[in-house]
Amino acid sequence: MIPGPTDLHPRVIDAMRRQMIDHRSEEFRELMRSLEERCKKVFETRNDVYVLTASGTGGVECAASNLVELGDKVLVPIAGVFGERMADAIEAYGGEVVRIELPIGEAPTPQIIKKSLEENPDVSIVGFPYNDTSTGTIARDLPGIIRACKEHGVLTVVDAVSILGGAKLPVDELGIDVCITGSQKCLAAPPGLALISFSEKALEKAEKKKKRPHYFDVVKYRKFLEERQETPFTPAVSLFFALDEALKIIVDEVGLDRWIERHQAGAAALYAAASELGVELFAKEDFRSPTVLAFKPPKNITDAQIRQVMLEKFRVRIAGGLAQFRGKMFRIANIGNVAGDRILKTIDALAQTLQQLTGNSRREEALEAAKRELDKRWPG
Amino acid sequence: MIPGPTDLHPRVIDAMRRQMIDHRSEEFRELMRSLEERCKKVFETRNDVYVLTASGTGGVECAASNLVELGDKVLVPIAGVFGERMADAIEAYGGEVVRIELPIGEAPTPQIIKKSLEENPDVSIVGFPYNDTSTGTIARDLPGIIRACKEHGVLTVVDAVSILGGAKLPVDELGIDVCITGSQKCLAAPPGLALISFSEKALEKAEKKKKRPHYFDVVKYRKFLEERQETPFTPAVSLFFALDEALKIIVDEVGLDRWIERHQAGAAALYAAASELGVELFAKEDFRSPTVLAFKPPKNITDAQIRQVMLEKFRVRIAGGLAQFRGKMFRIANIGNVAGDRILKTIDALAQTLQQLTGNSRREEALEAAKRELDKRWPG
Repeated sequence: MIPGPTDLHPRVIDAMRRQMIDHRSEEFRELMRSLEERCKKVFETRNDVYVLTASGTGGVECAASNLVELGDKVLVPIAGVFGERMADAIEAYGGEVVRIELPIGEAPTPQIIKKSLEENPDVSIVGFPYNDTSTGTIARDLPGIIRACKEHGVLTVVDAVSILGGAKLPVDELGIDVCITGSQKCLAAPPGLALISFSEKALEKAEKKKKRPHYFDVVKYRKFLEERQETPFTPAVSLFFALDEALKIIVDEVGLDRWIERHQAGAAALYAAASELGVELFAKEDFRSPTVLAFKPPKNITDAQIRQVMLEKFRVRIAGGLAQFRGKMFRIANIGNVAGDRILKTIDALAQTLQQLTGNSRREEALEAAKRELDKRWPG
Repeated sequence: MIPGPTDLHPRVIDAMRRQMIDHRSEEFRELMRSLEERCKKVFETRNDVYVLTASGTGGVECAASNLVELGDKVLVPIAGVFGERMADAIEAYGGEVVRIELPIGEAPTPQIIKKSLEENPDVSIVGFPYNDTSTGTIARDLPGIIRACKEHGVLTVVDAVSILGGAKLPVDELGIDVCITGSQKCLAAPPGLALISFSEKALEKAEKKKKRPHYFDVVKYRKFLEERQETPFTPAVSLFFALDEALKIIVDEVGLDRWIERHQAGAAALYAAASELGVELFAKEDFRSPTVLAFKPPKNITDAQIRQVMLEKFRVRIAGGLAQFRGKMFRIANIGNVAGDRILKTIDALAQTLQQLTGNSRREEALEAAKRELDKRWPG
């Protein structure tokens, strides 16, 4: 129950059990067409979706390095480590970042974005993580944020690495220019691929850019995809097999809406249980992520103790804090192939762990509250 | 028989058939230590070898983006498409490239490098592919080239993507500052990982650089590897499993020297057969690559015809030309898990294909010449 890489469906594992194919062959082009069709469905876009051989951070770098010209002013609201990473990536390409440091537990809102854009009328790009796993927060009113950006005529870059497939994210309906996700989170494929969509407007900016990157050059990716259904450089073929299988499960079998509902139901169950257990969340009420919950350890016990008991006694692996949050939090993820029984098993393990460490038991109440949410939101 | 991705050993395929593991766990760190130990052995270096989730071109970009400061003068001898790619990558980061366009079929020599360095005393880096698969050429006197570079006190960047594991390449003994390879060529793992070694001197230059890239920041890779045996960003875990298994076969079982000999013997057999068949090579005698042979199609037949007959009639896949060489050549690779029987099968298929298309048959002679080389260089 860590925030990715997530457990793989046996069919996704088996998909990698194939001999290599030539990435300049018709066999590969067929795979690419299948992948592309389903990538567009999960992004809900008619834009191209490029599949990069890189982790999600590589996808963020692709956006920054193709869009940001020296001196471009870019607004980056920061709700945690991944907001900082985006700011770093933009600065690495000469962008002038206007950082909005949000209070811990909050996420970007349309109001904050509007105000900052009014104060900084020369901003040309707004970029941020929709969901920041380092603090367990989500920018819930994404439609309002994108609308505010459009009113100011700025490009929008949404890092959806830890959320696409776990919350509604219709790229075209909202009008997101660049949207990025990773293979290993809510899409439940192995890590190593970044998926990135570019609107026409974003592609035009990239095309005009004087120096584009080489490996992440989106203009090359477009040319190869549109003309030949190939990638410009050797792709991670085994991971393409796996992602294709994972997307077939999501799109053709479970259905994207139901796949998202499962994440939402699992999150509701976890939050209900957390409330019964009395553990304190980092995320404020309006910004609670459906894919990652970040908790403060109860007084006098450490996150390491909690994680250790959960792992050794209950075989449930949860995460600690990242970077500046190391030692200050424990995190439970609800990403990918997480069915109701695993949610309940995790809650049970957490309840018993807290009982062992603090003496305070609300195990029955927590499980009851979780079951109620699962029954209501995700029957059967 | 294409220049990568190469066929995988069944054990390498099976290695990917595992459930995902946490890349921040002891289990992953063990994998990383095993990988690192064997990477150092195939690079013959005591430098760190970083494993990037990216294709080989990403490795070249990592070198360029960490080393090249705006205005740095970089010497790039160009023997084919991959030399051009390196020049492009360097220019993308503001480097001023001094291109040495070599005659087709030639590769860099110590003499050319020496002369160019004397003419351009302000060059601070020399970078080039050791082996260029687009023309089937190798810079055979690599030790002499590196020596010439050292005499001028410049940093050396060697793109060994298509050759490391297929020819002797002792990084420390030669004193190469940055050496890059890919998982899917002579190391016979699936594509998607780039391996890159950095000398202390190269790391110092990277550390001093004002703006390093984000995803490919080698200073971060160093910190995470040395302090925690981890990668800074989520790695392609399944491919790490596969590469670890592939390196165990090469280093622990076959032995690196014998693995290299196999490539050399296969190449000798292919060249001997080609000579009997009378097909013309792009590479001049002194620059013949041991991993890729590039041929001109005989008069009045096209490379597409040859490739089609080989594939459809004999189930042997060979490659065409890349970029400006498209339609002008056919290429046979000898990379990775290519045993003697596959070399002979390929020669047999090529001989019969040429007989069908040109009427000219030297099948027996070609097979005999190839067998002689295999028996002599690689008995048993």
